[in-house]
Amino acid sequence: MSTTNKPDSGREYHTQCTGAALDTVREHEKDNEITLFGSCFCPFVQRVWAAFEALGIDYKVYEVDPYKKPKELLEVSPKGLVPGLRFNNYSPPRALNESTVILEYLEDLAATKTKRSLLPPITDPYARALIRLQADHVNRSLVPAFYRYLQAQEDDKQIEAGKEFHASLEALVGLLERAEKEVLGGGGVSGEGEKKALARGLGLWVDQGDIGLVDVMAGPWLFRAKHVLTHYRGFELPQGKRFNEWLGRLFAHPAFAKTCSTEQLYLDSYERYAFNRPNTSQVANAINSGRALP
Amino acid sequence: MSTTNKPDSGREYHTQCTGAALDTVREHEKDNEITLFGSCFCPFVQRVWAAFEALGIDYKVYEVDPYKKPKELLEVSPKGLVPGLRFNNYSPPRALNESTVILEYLEDLAATKTKRSLLPPITDPYARALIRLQADHVNRSLVPAFYRYLQAQEDDKQIEAGKEFHASLEALVGLLERAEKEVLGGGGVSGEGEKKALARGLGLWVDQGDIGLVDVMAGPWLFRAKHVLTHYRGFELPQGKRFNEWLGRLFAHPAFAKTCSTEQLYLDSYERYAFNRPNTSQVANAINSGRALP
Repeated sequence: MSTTNKPDSGREYHTQCTGAALDTVREHEKDNEITLFGSCFCPFVQRVWAAFEALGIDYKVYEVDPYKKPKELLEVSPKGLVPGLRFNNYSPPRALNESTVILEYLEDLAATKTKRSLLPPITDPYARALIRLQADHVNRSLVPAFYRYLQAQEDDKQIEAGKEFHASLEALVGLLERAEKEVLGGGGVSGEGEKKALARGLGLWVDQGDIGLVDVMAGPWLFRAKHVLTHYRGFELPQGKRFNEWLGRLFAHPAFAKTCSTEQLYLDSYERYAFNRPNTSQVANAINSGRALP
Repeated sequence: MSTTNKPDSGREYHTQCTGAALDTVREHEKDNEITLFGSCFCPFVQRVWAAFEALGIDYKVYEVDPYKKPKELLEVSPKGLVPGLRFNNYSPPRALNESTVILEYLEDLAATKTKRSLLPPITDPYARALIRLQADHVNRSLVPAFYRYLQAQEDDKQIEAGKEFHASLEALVGLLERAEKEVLGGGGVSGEGEKKALARGLGLWVDQGDIGLVDVMAGPWLFRAKHVLTHYRGFELPQGKRFNEWLGRLFAHPAFAKTCSTEQLYLDSYERYAFNRPNTSQVANAINSGRALP
């Protein structure tokens, strides 16, 4: 029983996007060089999907039920996990899986194809590294903390896991502030033009920034924290002005907003996690057994 | 008691390199723009150290006792973990931690500074992605499996963990073979010159390759598997010809060999892990509590 005392109503996960995300699926039904295998509620898919949109790379989207694992998905992703990419102009088709590997792939592809980027320019390796520190924190701390919190059942475990998730968010804010201070706060920044150029690569945390790596890496879990953790755990996101401005910019950014379904889809799809139903997913099982996420 | 029935002799970890690594420390004692904070037995340090050597970037090395955590280390790495970098030409000095973030930083720095790389060229994003899949597997599977095996105490747990480590090595070989086949085996490769150029970025797995990302990412644990796991667990590395040729090339490559101490240093330093002594390290504690590595 969760602290919010809502009983398990037995709702099942969705298999088709709703709202803005459904419109985006429909815009990307045509054959393309790249097929994105995705599932509507999966945050690992959403980070890749938002990156496609942010980097201006075209794709076909193919919605699959990740727990039924169609043969085509297994050919693309050996563990049957979404997201997966299939490159259709090769015989046999090439494939790629693992959301962070796909993100780096899209970044590399965009470098020659669309000239867009989720990172500061390569001429500023230190700024890039500060962003990668944030991304590393998201993967190794924020994401597992999210699931531990959502899957915790007893009151004391929920309280502990909630504190841990909150602390992980605060640590992320610390890394965002550090990058801003070290990149923009140095004596070497000479004018508004240079500041604006540097700010672009820092992501939506800074008000002159554009959508960046940490936005697409963390955004899907921040969005689910706002809806799913609030509903099932009575969670409150940090109240700081800067934090709220960041979330506002991120959730409204077209590349992110176009990949969001309506709230009910997430509430329905995550009820299995919130009551820690057996065999909810490979991710849920990894959390329950104290192993790294698959 | 381990399956090899050696009692805990109470040996302590070393605080200074030996052998070839000691020579390298002495060659890098002079002040430099970049200080590498390292510890002689730490594999996370070794991957960064080998990358400095492979990419031809100069550095000063500063050996610290990672369990005494001098104040200078804490200024560079908030958790007091090595490796850490300090950039001395800034006031206050800039700093960077997390081995994989440092590796990406060095790769970016080398792109403009020495023109060397641990990855295939950015014009081949798919080849780069296949290497990143290997690196991702090393971090998320091979490294934790190594510690679980070395820290397992009861016979049945050692057998299980040994199988898991072996399976993780086999899966890595699968990813190495896949990259080789998909990059070199395609019909698009027209001649020996092109093949050689493509092979370079695939790492030492292919005999025309040069040291690459997965070599420096996995090498330190492969080296410790050969020495430490063999000694404390009676482990046998996979016997395949290709696998042995790979290890031969990797362990003999100057950029890697220069960062290796003598075998006894590792046997002494890892006895704490092999008997799972309490509070051996943050890494050991994470493994014992089923959490992601720090």
